[in-house]
Amino acid sequence: MAVKIGVRRVHVGLANLDGHMKAKEVTPLVSHDPKKVVDQVRELVARLLAQCTPQEVIGMGICCPGIIDTKKGEVIKAVNLHWHHVPLRQMFSLHFPWPVFVENSMDTGALGEKWFGSGKDVQDLLYISLGNGIGAGIISHGELLEGYQHAAGEFGHTSIDLDGLLCPCGNRGCVELYASAPAIVRRACAYLEKGGETRIREVWDEGSEELTCEVIDKAARLGDPFALKLWQETGELLGRAIANLVNLLDPEIVVIGGGLSLAHPILLDTIAAVIWDTTASLHERKVEVRRAFFGRDSGLVGAAVLTIERIFA
Amino acid sequence: MAVKIGVRRVHVGLANLDGHMKAKEVTPLVSHDPKKVVDQVRELVARLLAQCTPQEVIGMGICCPGIIDTKKGEVIKAVNLHWHHVPLRQMFSLHFPWPVFVENSMDTGALGEKWFGSGKDVQDLLYISLGNGIGAGIISHGELLEGYQHAAGEFGHTSIDLDGLLCPCGNRGCVELYASAPAIVRRACAYLEKGGETRIREVWDEGSEELTCEVIDKAARLGDPFALKLWQETGELLGRAIANLVNLLDPEIVVIGGGLSLAHPILLDTIAAVIWDTTASLHERKVEVRRAFFGRDSGLVGAAVLTIERIFA
Repeated sequence: MAVKIGVRRVHVGLANLDGHMKAKEVTPLVSHDPKKVVDQVRELVARLLAQCTPQEVIGMGICCPGIIDTKKGEVIKAVNLHWHHVPLRQMFSLHFPWPVFVENSMDTGALGEKWFGSGKDVQDLLYISLGNGIGAGIISHGELLEGYQHAAGEFGHTSIDLDGLLCPCGNRGCVELYASAPAIVRRACAYLEKGGETRIREVWDEGSEELTCEVIDKAARLGDPFALKLWQETGELLGRAIANLVNLLDPEIVVIGGGLSLAHPILLDTIAAVIWDTTASLHERKVEVRRAFFGRDSGLVGAAVLTIERIFA
Repeated sequence: MAVKIGVRRVHVGLANLDGHMKAKEVTPLVSHDPKKVVDQVRELVARLLAQCTPQEVIGMGICCPGIIDTKKGEVIKAVNLHWHHVPLRQMFSLHFPWPVFVENSMDTGALGEKWFGSGKDVQDLLYISLGNGIGAGIISHGELLEGYQHAAGEFGHTSIDLDGLLCPCGNRGCVELYASAPAIVRRACAYLEKGGETRIREVWDEGSEELTCEVIDKAARLGDPFALKLWQETGELLGRAIANLVNLLDPEIVVIGGGLSLAHPILLDTIAAVIWDTTASLHERKVEVRRAFFGRDSGLVGAAVLTIERIFA
């Protein structure tokens, strides 16, 4: 059983030993209160258990944002969820008979892609997740780089602009302020407010209530020049930021995952081109940029991998 | 026998199995031509061998900047030395009877501090060398993070300013352009040219022909406000840049080495304070910043460690 707790949604999946999701449930998170999150997961698990015999389930891997004490199965700090010392394993173990494992979502994203996805053939990969937040999972010589306190991977809070925007984390110019989904939507809103010409307005009117990156992407796929430029600019910025990591970590490949990895190809193409332009003089080879095989689901698949890895270790 | 080839100097040391340097020779590099470098090292080794019996020497560890193929003992690319595919092991093995090992200087710096220096008690450390160049050696769970092609650690070429100065590497705003020894000297020169008030001029007149960071540091230690401000500003900038690495890698400690680590304490104190200010909201603990135990010599000691590690592995 694999669980991914995000800031807005919770995903629960029933995975085979080869990482294939037999069934999946996704619902908006009703509350950030840890107890209510556990209740919500219980309901989703009950629905999935109707599709298999409970004896078939060998364990439960849970991933969420933040700093995790993986030995205790405790979330030490998750700023976006406002969690501080939440004993997830203990809370889940009250309701489920299986062993429970907890890990950071970026780390499970990297694990999912390494075991069954776009990084199956490599030992040194950098997984970047682009969505409401931005983070990284680093695999070096086949092993997850966890950090001393399991807090590695905060790529979204690396600064690329000394005098840039002030970030809630206290720093200035953090990557997340420029290239996360909310940041891209903010840029589109600013353009719309100035009366800029774009088909985003038309696509928005047809569909969702909220202006989202999906709306912007639909416009880009209709050939809208502003939406395409927005993806390209975001790609340039992310390319520059990821190039820093390529110079620092020398991965064999970069895997781009999260919701934004599904956007118009101009985003990934620009990221790849800019990384190469920026790192060519120091390196002897082109770092390959691949789309995550599991798209939004790398973290969920990785939560299943975590379970398999720990149980069969 | 430990050899460190830098851009300006070559260091050769005779080390005990506990990393202690029994004797050391340092001379300016006469040429960047690899053959002439080998000849120069041969002379220095001959001087050191006069101080021991050659049978006592078990191997030779060599470190230099650049991307290294450690299996072949070949420098694939070292931009600062203008080297491209230089088979150092092969060249040195012609003249010496011992096994020869080659590694990047930042990686040996981290190894030296981890085995015998300021990082003896930890498993996750980030070694930062500040000198004519700026680089990093990353140790994660006790192991060196080498990268896919042994090119990890190019911290000096991570950009902290999107619209910053153009770097010879092709990127803009690289850390090295602001905080390396030549960059600091450039900033002091610009101030002197404008006729700014500082005791740097007076110290410079007393001593060396060239304006160096040692001159600036002497002035700082005399209480010169401009020199102190220069160290502080450099510390603020480095603190911001290293904070990115702390968020990304979550090391237990940061070890600052290289020539600049010996500067007035205001530099390290500022680095430590700014790292904490910048990372506090995401972390649960203060990352400790320590001065490298071996100062300028961490890389050389690490070249000895490399030899010991490989021979007794």
